[in-house]
Amino acid sequence: MPPLTIVSTIAELRTARATLPEPIGLVPTMGYLHAGHLSLVERARGENAAVVVSIFVNPAQFGPQEDLAAYPRDLPGDLARLQAGGANLVWLPDPQIVYPPGFQTWVSVEEIARPLEGAMRPGHFRGVATVVAKLFNAVQPQRAYFGQKDAQQVVVIRRMAADLNFPIEVVVCPTIREPDGLAMSSRNSYLSVEERRAAPVLFRALSQAQAAFLDGERSAEALRSRMLAALAAAPLAEPQYVSCADPDTLQEMDGSIQGCLLSMAVFIGKTRLIDNLLLPAEPAP
Amino acid sequence: MPPLTIVSTIAELRTARATLPEPIGLVPTMGYLHAGHLSLVERARGENAAVVVSIFVNPAQFGPQEDLAAYPRDLPGDLARLQAGGANLVWLPDPQIVYPPGFQTWVSVEEIARPLEGAMRPGHFRGVATVVAKLFNAVQPQRAYFGQKDAQQVVVIRRMAADLNFPIEVVVCPTIREPDGLAMSSRNSYLSVEERRAAPVLFRALSQAQAAFLDGERSAEALRSRMLAALAAAPLAEPQYVSCADPDTLQEMDGSIQGCLLSMAVFIGKTRLIDNLLLPAEPAP
Repeated sequence: MPPLTIVSTIAELRTARATLPEPIGLVPTMGYLHAGHLSLVERARGENAAVVVSIFVNPAQFGPQEDLAAYPRDLPGDLARLQAGGANLVWLPDPQIVYPPGFQTWVSVEEIARPLEGAMRPGHFRGVATVVAKLFNAVQPQRAYFGQKDAQQVVVIRRMAADLNFPIEVVVCPTIREPDGLAMSSRNSYLSVEERRAAPVLFRALSQAQAAFLDGERSAEALRSRMLAALAAAPLAEPQYVSCADPDTLQEMDGSIQGCLLSMAVFIGKTRLIDNLLLPAEPAP
Repeated sequence: MPPLTIVSTIAELRTARATLPEPIGLVPTMGYLHAGHLSLVERARGENAAVVVSIFVNPAQFGPQEDLAAYPRDLPGDLARLQAGGANLVWLPDPQIVYPPGFQTWVSVEEIARPLEGAMRPGHFRGVATVVAKLFNAVQPQRAYFGQKDAQQVVVIRRMAADLNFPIEVVVCPTIREPDGLAMSSRNSYLSVEERRAAPVLFRALSQAQAAFLDGERSAEALRSRMLAALAAAPLAEPQYVSCADPDTLQEMDGSIQGCLLSMAVFIGKTRLIDNLLLPAEPAP
């Protein structure tokens, strides 16, 4: 494994980045790394000459009532995992390096950032788009890696990268799941033992709707009802939304669909979990 | 002089840009080039191995009541001037290349974009910041050149480049003036003969306030009054605002000042002209 360089300031980052061979793959993270993150590092390693990972719990993407202060951290464990995973460079900026005094520039993606997570978390995607634009410029990678777990984030970042002409390929990697189907997430660490037992209901609900779709069900309403029924049968699960949306525009669909993005946000106790499955449209006959 | 390459699509631009030696200097323009623009090209030539010029009348920075449709154009003349001026590459995109269907990402600079031009032209600086971010990513220059004539634009772009970590040096060049003091502007072509005779009053008013400052006048109110009095004495001049503002924050100043940015927007007939002078603070004793 290559030696792992750790930097904090932008100047240190640029100096270290200049010594790396190209192409460079960037994996942006908020730390507390799990197998999902490490699958992005592995994919980036396979496709690039060097891998840069950022660890930054971005205050701008948390709402005032959200879990910024409680967000889990394990820096020594993260660095050991990244060293073992073959990353070359880790950027660990303090918040005042990313948002220095006088900072006042924001990147906003409009229509596709409004429904779903955007409706539940006002300002969230402005914070995401802004920090990712900054990461793109600070690291200047050829490729950047994101997980399908955050389905709307992926759509927003792809749109932002295209709209602002970033010379960077956005690579989306599959959701990594626990053996019982629970999507890997740093927030799973909030779950009590009992909640953890209930949490696979998100994937179960998505899978039941997927199975119905594969059996020929094409009604968006029926797919949403199927997911809600599966969630209602589980203890502790309080759905915030279930969605059957157009995979490109993220607008909620009605009536007969071709493919769609099934997604949901569900409270398990006080912990808010999200998950999704893409149902591909059949090829035209 | 080097051969002048002309491209239209992003793909053509990236291909042509990849053949140029670095460092690259970018001069963003809206065309109808005058000696002010050409001074930017000359400065960029002196400091870089190659010069890229963009010509794009950016619809996003014009308000619905503004002069987008009437904005003057002279493409053959512009290309001849750029060839003679030693530019290497000209990017001439159609609006649908810059803003394709589905475009929905905007870059906004907040506090410093609100007063002065921002107050008179809502949305203007959002359009400017967005198109400049796109130009930076599409061209990937090492330096970008802007004229002090658009004083607030310079402050907004510097802030945007710093806040979003663009690896690009923003270079600001002096305002170029006609012999009678009128700042060079493509919009001067709108002026009738009579209006053209009246138009140097902006620089005269700025110069009188500057002279008062150099004579020891330190009252922001007095400097604004001095400019208004000079404008009132001229035929055809209808001031929209005169300002004595903090050069960094662009907040209007009151009472006793050190240095400041003097600026104004004045209608000469139907043509809106802007101009400014920076009054430097004296070094601390």
